[in-house]
Amino acid sequence: MNELELIQILSRSLPANNSVVTGAGDDCAVLDLNIPGRWLLFKTDAVVEGVHFTEADPPQKIGHKALARCLSDIAAMAGTPTAAVITLALPREFDLKRVEAIYDGINSLARRYQVAIVGGDTTTNPDRLLISVSLIGSVEKDKCVSRSGSKAGDAIFVCGELGGSRAGKHLNFEPRLAEARWLAEHFEIHSMIDVSDGLASDVRHLLRAGNVGAELLSDAIPISRAARLQAKTESSQKPPLLAALTEGEDFELLFTLASKDAVRLLDGWKKQFPKLRLSCIGKIVAAPGLKIRSKTGVQTLTAHGYIHFKES
Amino acid sequence: MNELELIQILSRSLPANNSVVTGAGDDCAVLDLNIPGRWLLFKTDAVVEGVHFTEADPPQKIGHKALARCLSDIAAMAGTPTAAVITLALPREFDLKRVEAIYDGINSLARRYQVAIVGGDTTTNPDRLLISVSLIGSVEKDKCVSRSGSKAGDAIFVCGELGGSRAGKHLNFEPRLAEARWLAEHFEIHSMIDVSDGLASDVRHLLRAGNVGAELLSDAIPISRAARLQAKTESSQKPPLLAALTEGEDFELLFTLASKDAVRLLDGWKKQFPKLRLSCIGKIVAAPGLKIRSKTGVQTLTAHGYIHFKES
Repeated sequence: MNELELIQILSRSLPANNSVVTGAGDDCAVLDLNIPGRWLLFKTDAVVEGVHFTEADPPQKIGHKALARCLSDIAAMAGTPTAAVITLALPREFDLKRVEAIYDGINSLARRYQVAIVGGDTTTNPDRLLISVSLIGSVEKDKCVSRSGSKAGDAIFVCGELGGSRAGKHLNFEPRLAEARWLAEHFEIHSMIDVSDGLASDVRHLLRAGNVGAELLSDAIPISRAARLQAKTESSQKPPLLAALTEGEDFELLFTLASKDAVRLLDGWKKQFPKLRLSCIGKIVAAPGLKIRSKTGVQTLTAHGYIHFKES
Repeated sequence: MNELELIQILSRSLPANNSVVTGAGDDCAVLDLNIPGRWLLFKTDAVVEGVHFTEADPPQKIGHKALARCLSDIAAMAGTPTAAVITLALPREFDLKRVEAIYDGINSLARRYQVAIVGGDTTTNPDRLLISVSLIGSVEKDKCVSRSGSKAGDAIFVCGELGGSRAGKHLNFEPRLAEARWLAEHFEIHSMIDVSDGLASDVRHLLRAGNVGAELLSDAIPISRAARLQAKTESSQKPPLLAALTEGEDFELLFTLASKDAVRLLDGWKKQFPKLRLSCIGKIVAAPGLKIRSKTGVQTLTAHGYIHFKES
């Protein structure tokens, strides 16, 4: 059983109440708590030693990653983050300096985005460090972007470059909060998600939520230098395109909007974010399924992104 | 270094913003998000296999405990819970039936208190199961009860019975949400906390927050049957009074109010909650320190409640 199958089973009949606008299944939960004009966003995400980072990784960056992952999910809804609580599960014997440095990483990123750290829980996890971050934020009701609004004919965009994140970016990445806010303020974004499981998986999340299909253009997919480099230097690695499609932890914005807006978007983006690449990587189609077009023709894409838990 | 010392170090300079009413250091964080008349409450808490429950414990009860601990903290602020997200960290090989049963325990308790489960994160924790719950709730601004309002002359109350929770109650306890709401609606409660670290520790939290002292009456402390029983049957166990003072995981409400209200409280409580004991266990005094009065005189109480992390 893989992670997505487990989540599907556990999400079957979750308790709801009349505050719930969107429950489990999007980048954040969306709640109506009678905040005038706004919805509350609520998200949790954990990183585990030996899974999401190693013992040797710089502790500030581990803290940065733990919070940045949640911020990236707030960005994916076009929201603004407000406050976080941190669960820190530590071995009984721990290095205080390392724990303080992890918190430095969390706090430094939090300050940059005006996120308050308002509490947490410290507990023992005898074998390894685990950090779980929960974050609330908010978004104007008419600006909130879900995974489910893709329409046939939409252009599909992704910012940044994909693949090879494990070479370093996964500890360093910048959550695309400013970019997502700008998109929601200037365009009618139909659907959005952050690329965490891998482009192919995350496109599929949009397609499933919108009950549509997509055709990607293999030449248009922005492949990172790290992915190209690892393909050259490590013979066991995936080809760069496959790395970009499947490796995940890119934390870039993947979104769709009407194709008539595509040129205006590309122009505006270049002025607003001149250092961050934006790529139109394909289009939404009515027929379900994910296809990829290359020089050799159109193929169904079967490659999956990174998924926790091996099949048993 | 123990848990409280670690929390103190990590809490020294946490990022804040203008939404924060109360940050780290109370049962919940309190946030002003422009909800008319109300504040948002935000809490996280984790339970870990081998620390807070054993592999042999019934999985429904493990789920119950994971959520009930957070609900107990919402109760301690006199709040109403709204929605939770769950981080489930699992070994790569796990028993799906057990995980579903844990969720049954969470969901069943959530339904009883109209709490929506709106998402979560599943990840791998190779060595043991860990469940982190984050909960939001809300409270009327004029009903919110913090840890810090104790005044000299206040009567100190605790509901239920204390000690011996590990014999079973720690997996079964009912969060005192209804009782706390009733208290806040009918009385001017000066300070409140839930007894999780142990009565002596949790009284100290109130004293430190209020910059006051207390004198407890040893005969008035409600000792559970489980604590008495374990003292009889297991020669290595603590005497029952010490168990009630220090063992923790009781999840009862500990609170103070003006002593002039004490009789009206005891009368009203007996009618409202006839099955749940309420005990006046002492009084708040101006001089800092925690003392306990018994037949043999007044002594300074040095016994601590349960604290994570041994001194190194």
